[in-house]
Amino acid sequence: MTPKPADQDATDPVRVALLGCGNVGGALAELLTARQDDIAARTGIRLDLVGIAVANMDRPRPSGIAPEQFTTDSAALAVRDDVEVVVELIGGLHPAQELISAALRAGKSVVTGNKTVLAVAGAELAELAAAHGVDLLYEAAVAGAIPVVRALRESLAGEQIVRVMGIVNGTTNFILTRMEEDGVDFDAALADAQRLGLAERDPTADVDGHDAAAKAAILAALAFGSDVVDAEVHREGIRGIRAVDVAYANRLGYTVKLLAVAELVDGGPELSVRVHPAMVPKSHPLASVRGAFNAVFVEGAGSGEIMLYGRGAGGPPSASAVLGDLVDASRNRRAGAPAPAPKRTSISMRPQLDLRSAFYLSMDVADRPGVLAAVAKVFGDHQVSIRAMEQVGLADEARLIFLTHLAREGDLLATIDELRLLQAVDRVSGVLRVIGEEE
Amino acid sequence: MTPKPADQDATDPVRVALLGCGNVGGALAELLTARQDDIAARTGIRLDLVGIAVANMDRPRPSGIAPEQFTTDSAALAVRDDVEVVVELIGGLHPAQELISAALRAGKSVVTGNKTVLAVAGAELAELAAAHGVDLLYEAAVAGAIPVVRALRESLAGEQIVRVMGIVNGTTNFILTRMEEDGVDFDAALADAQRLGLAERDPTADVDGHDAAAKAAILAALAFGSDVVDAEVHREGIRGIRAVDVAYANRLGYTVKLLAVAELVDGGPELSVRVHPAMVPKSHPLASVRGAFNAVFVEGAGSGEIMLYGRGAGGPPSASAVLGDLVDASRNRRAGAPAPAPKRTSISMRPQLDLRSAFYLSMDVADRPGVLAAVAKVFGDHQVSIRAMEQVGLADEARLIFLTHLAREGDLLATIDELRLLQAVDRVSGVLRVIGEEE
Repeated sequence: MTPKPADQDATDPVRVALLGCGNVGGALAELLTARQDDIAARTGIRLDLVGIAVANMDRPRPSGIAPEQFTTDSAALAVRDDVEVVVELIGGLHPAQELISAALRAGKSVVTGNKTVLAVAGAELAELAAAHGVDLLYEAAVAGAIPVVRALRESLAGEQIVRVMGIVNGTTNFILTRMEEDGVDFDAALADAQRLGLAERDPTADVDGHDAAAKAAILAALAFGSDVVDAEVHREGIRGIRAVDVAYANRLGYTVKLLAVAELVDGGPELSVRVHPAMVPKSHPLASVRGAFNAVFVEGAGSGEIMLYGRGAGGPPSASAVLGDLVDASRNRRAGAPAPAPKRTSISMRPQLDLRSAFYLSMDVADRPGVLAAVAKVFGDHQVSIRAMEQVGLADEARLIFLTHLAREGDLLATIDELRLLQAVDRVSGVLRVIGEEE
Repeated sequence: MTPKPADQDATDPVRVALLGCGNVGGALAELLTARQDDIAARTGIRLDLVGIAVANMDRPRPSGIAPEQFTTDSAALAVRDDVEVVVELIGGLHPAQELISAALRAGKSVVTGNKTVLAVAGAELAELAAAHGVDLLYEAAVAGAIPVVRALRESLAGEQIVRVMGIVNGTTNFILTRMEEDGVDFDAALADAQRLGLAERDPTADVDGHDAAAKAAILAALAFGSDVVDAEVHREGIRGIRAVDVAYANRLGYTVKLLAVAELVDGGPELSVRVHPAMVPKSHPLASVRGAFNAVFVEGAGSGEIMLYGRGAGGPPSASAVLGDLVDASRNRRAGAPAPAPKRTSISMRPQLDLRSAFYLSMDVADRPGVLAAVAKVFGDHQVSIRAMEQVGLADEARLIFLTHLAREGDLLATIDELRLLQAVDRVSGVLRVIGEEE
């Protein structure tokens, strides 16, 4: 019989089971196989990959791994007696959630990159890990190799965090960058992303903000201890963004980004957790994050502004993040002390309609006298104050572009509803929140 | 008698002694006093500040701290029986090094922001900490609130790091940003920095690269386990940089930054650790780091490119970094397991003259036929290949600007020496390494 973890001493190898051997799992299996000695020399921890669960035994697998390591019985591998740390890289909610849960109950430490499970059941899994004195680590779930989870969990543990804003979806950032740099429309940029393997054939999870919303929920839990789940995150995607609005934004000194935001509204205690496209001033560090890169921008009372930037996805970067967690979980096991879990509490959320933001909007109107006055009156009637207006001529129409001062979202939406009733207004479109306008 | 650490259980407050109460120490003392309950709620750790050593009892001190907390006997406080964690924020080599050493020997965990001590004696202090089973943590020593030490020590522990490049001195980055944005000369920009309190009256430590060299040595230890000390770091400052070269660099698509670099030369095993100004392509993430901000750019085999950005100095950001370490050290104490210390080994250094880099140089020459041919011959004679040349007219002189392909530093210096002997060459100046040109 293999010895149980409690019988092992600090110099024994740590026995690791891997669930899932796709893009990230395959890269990790290669690392653990090819670089075992090097990792041991660097970290003092010898990681011994003792089993890999896959759905299909017939697919080609990373070289250097003995065929008898593979199994299709993930449930058995997750709780196998000789395993100390389970790495879950299957993705999706089921059966990943049940496997993680079973592994924790069996006293295994768990490393996962599964944002879906964490955004839905992160709080209860963290409690389970704490109850069993083991680790649940998930650096790869938010932004690949960027060490944002550890920074929030450890470096900024005592910090009063005010706001976290992230570009956490590489696909949409690639699309928006293409739209800005090459002036192409959303559909063309999406087709490009698909051609390059940066977007799925069904791009819903990325372009409608589902992926970012799950990550926003995880960031909110880390930064504020919030127990918000992804379904509670206000979510707007980028399908409605037109190249012309990206171009106007650019001319006005902004770049358009899909942001995952978690913040204490007006300094607290209410929280807002949301995903939406926004106009970011070009002078803001997030504006320089281009293509498929990710970044997370953290504002703390003491720390000031911090930004962590890097590759948010892909096999090797995500495998690197998993490896960092694996070393951490192994060290903690040998020391007999799991990493501290962030505390979760129920924090009330500010309703989206009661948030205040500056807005950009563009509308096509008939080009005749009195139209601007009528439009301006509607803004004023709803307490939305205009900071700047510009008219762009279009044949016998005119396009009006407005930037507002900070306004309540509900008031802005009421303004748009009423503008749409004006006979002279053909359409209102390109409504975007503007970041960096404070009261 | 106060109980000894070994008698305390996980819920007891952790007793903290603070050595030094200046800019950072004062901000930390305020945090620990005003936010004790909040920190305990966030982290599960109650930090109890039990004494503060100062050099002068008469200076004004942060409010809310009982006068009897203060002492001038730092040596006694550092080893006092009831103290578990010592925070050293005195700065400078002596007596800080002796105090840290005494505290570690007495079984205290130590948190410090002292780059000087770490760059000189980091390896031996880390050994001392390991021998006594306590922590030596120093996030604040490299780049203020930016969690670069923890990222290298934990997140990237198993990663094969190839290169670390940092803008780690806010004063010089402020000066270079002013020179670029406003076209002013070094002296005027330095005077500005001094007026704003961003530079000392004697700016040597910053502008000649001493501060950055100490941080380069610490980064090399973290990323590569190197035992290099700061005196071994090749060091060039920014005094010789002229506004005109910053402007030319800008026109060529580069921005000038003072970089601290630690890298495996040609993939290893030799290391290079150095500080010098460099031309960074504007598309590089480091180019967007402006003013007094800091950033560290890490390239790993798996992780790809990661950049960590934020405020590298100042009371509250550095105090925030110290607080993160203090929570970590306290958790580790309660768990009975210190954080893993990076392993140090002696890695041979590639001599600076044998490094290869692309170079920018500008020279003033007589504007007459044949001069360019003579100059070009000197480059060729030393195996320095020219990638681009531009002539800028100046009355009856001409200024020639060259960008080279990758060249050996020794060959480039020999080229310059010989160019200076040419009668037609009035002066060679503005020699800058160019980042981002790979073979």
